[in-house]
Amino acid sequence: MENHDEVVEIRQSILELIEQEAWSDVTEEFDNLHVQDIAQLLTELPDIAVRARVFRQIPQERWVATFSYLSPASQEELLGQLSNREGRYVLTNMLPDDRTALLQQMAPENTERTLKLLPPADVRLALTLLRYPEESAGRLMTTDYVTVQPEWRIDEALAHIRAESRKGETVNTILVTDDQERLVDAIRLRSFILAEPDELVESIRPGYFVSVNAAEDREAAVRAMQHYDLEVLPVTDSDGVLLGIVTVDDVMDVAQEETTEDFHKMGSVGALNLSLRDATPGLLYRKRVGWLVALVFINIFSGAAIAIYESTIEAVIALVFFLPMIVASGGNAGAQASTLMVRALAIGDVTLSDWGRLLGKELSVGIALGITMGVAVSFIGLWRGGPEVAIVVALAMALVVLMGSLVGLLMPLILSRLKLDPATSSVPLITCIADIAGILIYFSVATALLTLPPA
Amino acid sequence: MENHDEVVEIRQSILELIEQEAWSDVTEEFDNLHVQDIAQLLTELPDIAVRARVFRQIPQERWVATFSYLSPASQEELLGQLSNREGRYVLTNMLPDDRTALLQQMAPENTERTLKLLPPADVRLALTLLRYPEESAGRLMTTDYVTVQPEWRIDEALAHIRAESRKGETVNTILVTDDQERLVDAIRLRSFILAEPDELVESIRPGYFVSVNAAEDREAAVRAMQHYDLEVLPVTDSDGVLLGIVTVDDVMDVAQEETTEDFHKMGSVGALNLSLRDATPGLLYRKRVGWLVALVFINIFSGAAIAIYESTIEAVIALVFFLPMIVASGGNAGAQASTLMVRALAIGDVTLSDWGRLLGKELSVGIALGITMGVAVSFIGLWRGGPEVAIVVALAMALVVLMGSLVGLLMPLILSRLKLDPATSSVPLITCIADIAGILIYFSVATALLTLPPA
Repeated sequence: MENHDEVVEIRQSILELIEQEAWSDVTEEFDNLHVQDIAQLLTELPDIAVRARVFRQIPQERWVATFSYLSPASQEELLGQLSNREGRYVLTNMLPDDRTALLQQMAPENTERTLKLLPPADVRLALTLLRYPEESAGRLMTTDYVTVQPEWRIDEALAHIRAESRKGETVNTILVTDDQERLVDAIRLRSFILAEPDELVESIRPGYFVSVNAAEDREAAVRAMQHYDLEVLPVTDSDGVLLGIVTVDDVMDVAQEETTEDFHKMGSVGALNLSLRDATPGLLYRKRVGWLVALVFINIFSGAAIAIYESTIEAVIALVFFLPMIVASGGNAGAQASTLMVRALAIGDVTLSDWGRLLGKELSVGIALGITMGVAVSFIGLWRGGPEVAIVVALAMALVVLMGSLVGLLMPLILSRLKLDPATSSVPLITCIADIAGILIYFSVATALLTLPPA
Repeated sequence: MENHDEVVEIRQSILELIEQEAWSDVTEEFDNLHVQDIAQLLTELPDIAVRARVFRQIPQERWVATFSYLSPASQEELLGQLSNREGRYVLTNMLPDDRTALLQQMAPENTERTLKLLPPADVRLALTLLRYPEESAGRLMTTDYVTVQPEWRIDEALAHIRAESRKGETVNTILVTDDQERLVDAIRLRSFILAEPDELVESIRPGYFVSVNAAEDREAAVRAMQHYDLEVLPVTDSDGVLLGIVTVDDVMDVAQEETTEDFHKMGSVGALNLSLRDATPGLLYRKRVGWLVALVFINIFSGAAIAIYESTIEAVIALVFFLPMIVASGGNAGAQASTLMVRALAIGDVTLSDWGRLLGKELSVGIALGITMGVAVSFIGLWRGGPEVAIVVALAMALVVLMGSLVGLLMPLILSRLKLDPATSSVPLITCIADIAGILIYFSVATALLTLPPA
């Protein structure tokens, strides 16, 4: 099974077999799919009872792997359809980190039933992991790792790794602990294979390693794994005692979630923490209404700014024609500057200390953009209102675009300086601020330059 | 060396040692840093001559690793400072994929000098890799992989893996080829360790694998690795002959670049393909001016819409007070809907076929938001203009918010249906369209409901 088209074809034929209730053929076809593709197929079945029926057709040795690729919401639904025996089989064989993710999103009434299915040791482990704060590194970790000690011989260590690996533990990176279970090193599996069997583990220790504290924010774990290209990141307590590991697949998921959060913030949507597909209209309403209402109240100032210049508007009603154009351009320039800054701060491309250089650069870009836009809009001004209006709109446009660019640049920097999330500097918020400033600039320029009758 | 604070401290002390030109102490301190941190420290040194001086203080066995964590722009600058002998050492020992990335960004005059430093075999390899289209999977791949054949014994295979690993090849995943070099399987290193030495490779073959064609878009490679949680993705030609592998660290970089591109598009900035730190004002100007000018010309229609209702405005000048508020709310609701859709489409959370369900959901969310916003703004209307104006602004607001939500939802879907990038549906573009429609809706409602003197 090699390419996307083939997978689509196989899925199509399985859907037809399900339609025909040809269950044993379904089981056979599953042999041609990866568990990730089977999980996706399950998600696409609308009827939950059919989904459970199809799940039972998966060979049992692939149940756990398939289950772990479902979203926590789908896992919870599916568990509700499985018998206690089936549910226990899946739950006890899941990786502890996947189980934590499921338990933390479960409705309380389901949590109790789920915990009853687990043996006491797994319940204790689940409760321990859930004690770490949400969004902490501890919540991400799994306890399925292999440790060796520095004084072991390589062949002893390899025999131990082999035995543990059969139990399904992660073995790409082997951890070295001292006799107090404190982490002292992390060694890649390839180093064990390269070493001579009678050497000591001590002799292949790289001597430096990266780890995070379980209480740290999960973003610290993501950053460390990306920065150091790690496949496995050990997690310790504050005494350096090894508690678990975070694996690269979890980190890629977290990185995607965090980026989605930033994206939503840029569009003034609250963090969704759920797929758009699964989100109810009620949840979407709650995540959106706050910013919409807040922005409308800020926009009262735009109205107030216009009210100040009501007499100017009454005198030269043609000015209103250019209002949306000029004001929107300030917002657009601000949106561009802010988007560039927010993303650059998020990926660590720039830091607060770069502000001077960034401001200088934005000043020259903003002036160049302002002049271009001013020239562009002056032709429209000439056409609609004559030379006097052309000069007013050109000058106002240049100033508004420059102002927008600077607001867009400074806002994320200031938020970041105040230890707030720079992504709060959303495009709608920048647009709103640029609107108010834009109206004031435009009508000030018009009042100053045009020959108006006395108010 | 364990945590971020320590790294900051060590870097600070190295900067001081550089200041004092205590070169041998600098070398000693480097032992306490990962190559990624050394690379970052080099990037932060403003003077390129100092940077080269410091680079020479790194123990030579860490030169190549450090060099490969610099950005291609920094690599090119540094190469200009190194002697031919030093440059050749670094270039010949780099991984082929990193070398391709460097060569493809290099100024033409430097490419020639660089190719002269390489031995003929490496030049041929570089030219082969550069023949693949930009943004293709072929451009991402490295040729440092290990292959075994199905009829080998495990211990023979392991001896071969050991020998190749010493040369620095990637060994986490071992590839199986037939006698025509066609890819037939991919086996994880752990399976070799778990197997008995006298078994055949044939017996531990998983029997299914994922690969991409070298000519495919690099996004296909990213999606496959994320979907299947792969560390190594084999790349073949159209006959299935193995050409190279893509590794997970490259994919994480590409995924970040692609997300940054989407982010920039959301703010109406052209794809930058370069860090904000390195971008010149001229480049930033070019990437921003196109959309700004395009949007201002679309905004002429906002002006035109206002011009249609000039007599209404002249009659009830108080209406202008509410214009920015109502029009902006439509844009904001549109920005929210569009942001949610663009991101959900990008991560595969929703697909085109979901459009009916999504439209239904957005209708109910849009109506609820419209009612809320209408009620909120009616109080301001009552305060500023009395009951008649309150009814006009409330009704207009509700309609404008609903319209904005639907535009924001439909635009990315339509773009996607036309095989265009949904991220082109940027917040400024949506805002601009919502502006025009908002002005028309607002003044239509006002003209219909208010008792106006004949125009």
